[in-house]
Amino acid sequence: MRWAVILAGGSGTRFWPLSTPARPKQLLPLAGPTSTAEQAVGRLEGLVPRERILLVTGAGIAPALRDLLRLPAENVLVEPRAASTGPALVWASHEAWRRDPDAEVLSLHADWVIRDEPAFRQTAAVALATAATHHRLVTVGIVPTRPETGYGYIVPGDRLDREAQAVRRFTEKPDAATALDLMADGALWNSGLFAWRAELLLEQVRRHTPEIAPHLGLLDRGDVAGFFQRITPVSIDVGVLERSPDVAVVPGRFTWDDVGTWDALPRVRIRDGQGNVAVGPVHFHDAQDCVAWSDAEPIVLAGVRDLVVVRANGRILVMPRTLAADLKSVLDRLPREVRDLQ
Amino acid sequence: MRWAVILAGGSGTRFWPLSTPARPKQLLPLAGPTSTAEQAVGRLEGLVPRERILLVTGAGIAPALRDLLRLPAENVLVEPRAASTGPALVWASHEAWRRDPDAEVLSLHADWVIRDEPAFRQTAAVALATAATHHRLVTVGIVPTRPETGYGYIVPGDRLDREAQAVRRFTEKPDAATALDLMADGALWNSGLFAWRAELLLEQVRRHTPEIAPHLGLLDRGDVAGFFQRITPVSIDVGVLERSPDVAVVPGRFTWDDVGTWDALPRVRIRDGQGNVAVGPVHFHDAQDCVAWSDAEPIVLAGVRDLVVVRANGRILVMPRTLAADLKSVLDRLPREVRDLQ
Repeated sequence: MRWAVILAGGSGTRFWPLSTPARPKQLLPLAGPTSTAEQAVGRLEGLVPRERILLVTGAGIAPALRDLLRLPAENVLVEPRAASTGPALVWASHEAWRRDPDAEVLSLHADWVIRDEPAFRQTAAVALATAATHHRLVTVGIVPTRPETGYGYIVPGDRLDREAQAVRRFTEKPDAATALDLMADGALWNSGLFAWRAELLLEQVRRHTPEIAPHLGLLDRGDVAGFFQRITPVSIDVGVLERSPDVAVVPGRFTWDDVGTWDALPRVRIRDGQGNVAVGPVHFHDAQDCVAWSDAEPIVLAGVRDLVVVRANGRILVMPRTLAADLKSVLDRLPREVRDLQ
Repeated sequence: MRWAVILAGGSGTRFWPLSTPARPKQLLPLAGPTSTAEQAVGRLEGLVPRERILLVTGAGIAPALRDLLRLPAENVLVEPRAASTGPALVWASHEAWRRDPDAEVLSLHADWVIRDEPAFRQTAAVALATAATHHRLVTVGIVPTRPETGYGYIVPGDRLDREAQAVRRFTEKPDAATALDLMADGALWNSGLFAWRAELLLEQVRRHTPEIAPHLGLLDRGDVAGFFQRITPVSIDVGVLERSPDVAVVPGRFTWDDVGTWDALPRVRIRDGQGNVAVGPVHFHDAQDCVAWSDAEPIVLAGVRDLVVVRANGRILVMPRTLAADLKSVLDRLPREVRDLQ
């Protein structure tokens, strides 16, 4: 049967001061009236029933996510520690396999904004079908719309059928010139949307992933804490997909955004005629290409451009949009009592 | 005897959202821990005793000023309406004359920041002495430090003594090129610091100021409301000083600032090494030449320059410093419920 795994870990500070440890990015209504985590569950409707949706997350936000998403309690898998996507997806796939030895797993992230949901669902169905037909680990590659340097790229290889191709190689975060070359060569963004038969993933891990393989027996015995204690953190891409010859890629033609920083908001929100994005009581006056968010007091932005202005959780942040990706370095220099939010 | 008149009218919105109708600029601690109105009273110490300091203000802020400045109740003159400086100074001078026919009046404003208080007091004493010796209306001209286009200039004429000169002409707000010429010609800024015998001012008004003269009898009869109802608003400069041949100017060498806008704060406040001014919990990170004020939440300014960021009275304002002088046009376009403050 079909299962879904939603990865909802990661605290993150890239939406400070809106994001907090207890309410990180995936719980925020960044792209609309509901959180991206709610949207992630919503987009599985008709594809995977709720009782077969597994959520992998951390202890800090598990209660909030459980309340928000109303998933069966036993479907919320709380990681003993954050250890990248490899152990998380292996554990969740193992869990699906334990409950259903024929489990076909679709894996996605809780912080995505996807504009074309029908296209997403169609792609997900193709990925699941490809995984079953070709007996491969399937990754969905998004057709790039810009030479983004923050993503990984997949260079497709031999064609397997009308939709699927083998993978020639993965390339992590290229520089701008390389990104342009990759686009020209038909490379795809590595989306993090995967499909596989759980049994195949476990078999591939046993073969290619020494960081995890020796400890799979602990999962067999239900010792999740022991498993996470012993494994070495590794991403599913590096630990499995890049090492396995049995990987396929199918193209995804939906618009996909992981809304990585404040600067990304204008990509996923409605802009006014001057390119500004406002959430909450914000008043623009001759402002251009600004991002403004207030959870309380009205903000007036006059005569400025390319700024991020946020009032949230008792803090006010003003920075150029170009600095959004480096927000962490700003926060690192703030006094703890200003930086740390409840 | 010596009297002082402090003009403390004017609501003003140029320090929105910090200034409010009940707490305008002169009641704000713009340049230090106390308000400029308190500083105005303080700088008269040793020059004019408190019981002979008259304050002219509006009904809205009179209670707050009375509480703050602890002046005798009968010394707080509440204008029935704002009608520029002419009627205010005529009324106050008339009031001083009524109580003391030999009154010598020093007139100043409640919103000044003066760096060199001893120099101010010395200049004020010279102005009062000049008014008595030469039987003239005396204005203090500040030696300009920049070709400011927002001020009026005084071009001095014949020398009367070592300190005083007659006035050749007044020039209102020149353009930048003219301001440079005026500076080169030895013109002085019209400061609004005046001295005169009350009796002489009233005599000159009778002779030169048809906007006010016909209604002086109402003041004689104590009908202040009637006086303000009938006069035509006019500034003391236009209505009297520019028309009278009996005017003298004495130079003021103190640093004087009327802190007209948010942009002026760095002139009267301590700046950090990057030219930033902060009041309240403000954190700069690679910010330059910014003005930031918070009465509550911490503000973080990162990677920006030449910005004004204010959080006060439940509003947040972000604008370039260059826009500070046009703040009114920004406020005019705001919804009333955002603009209007209690």
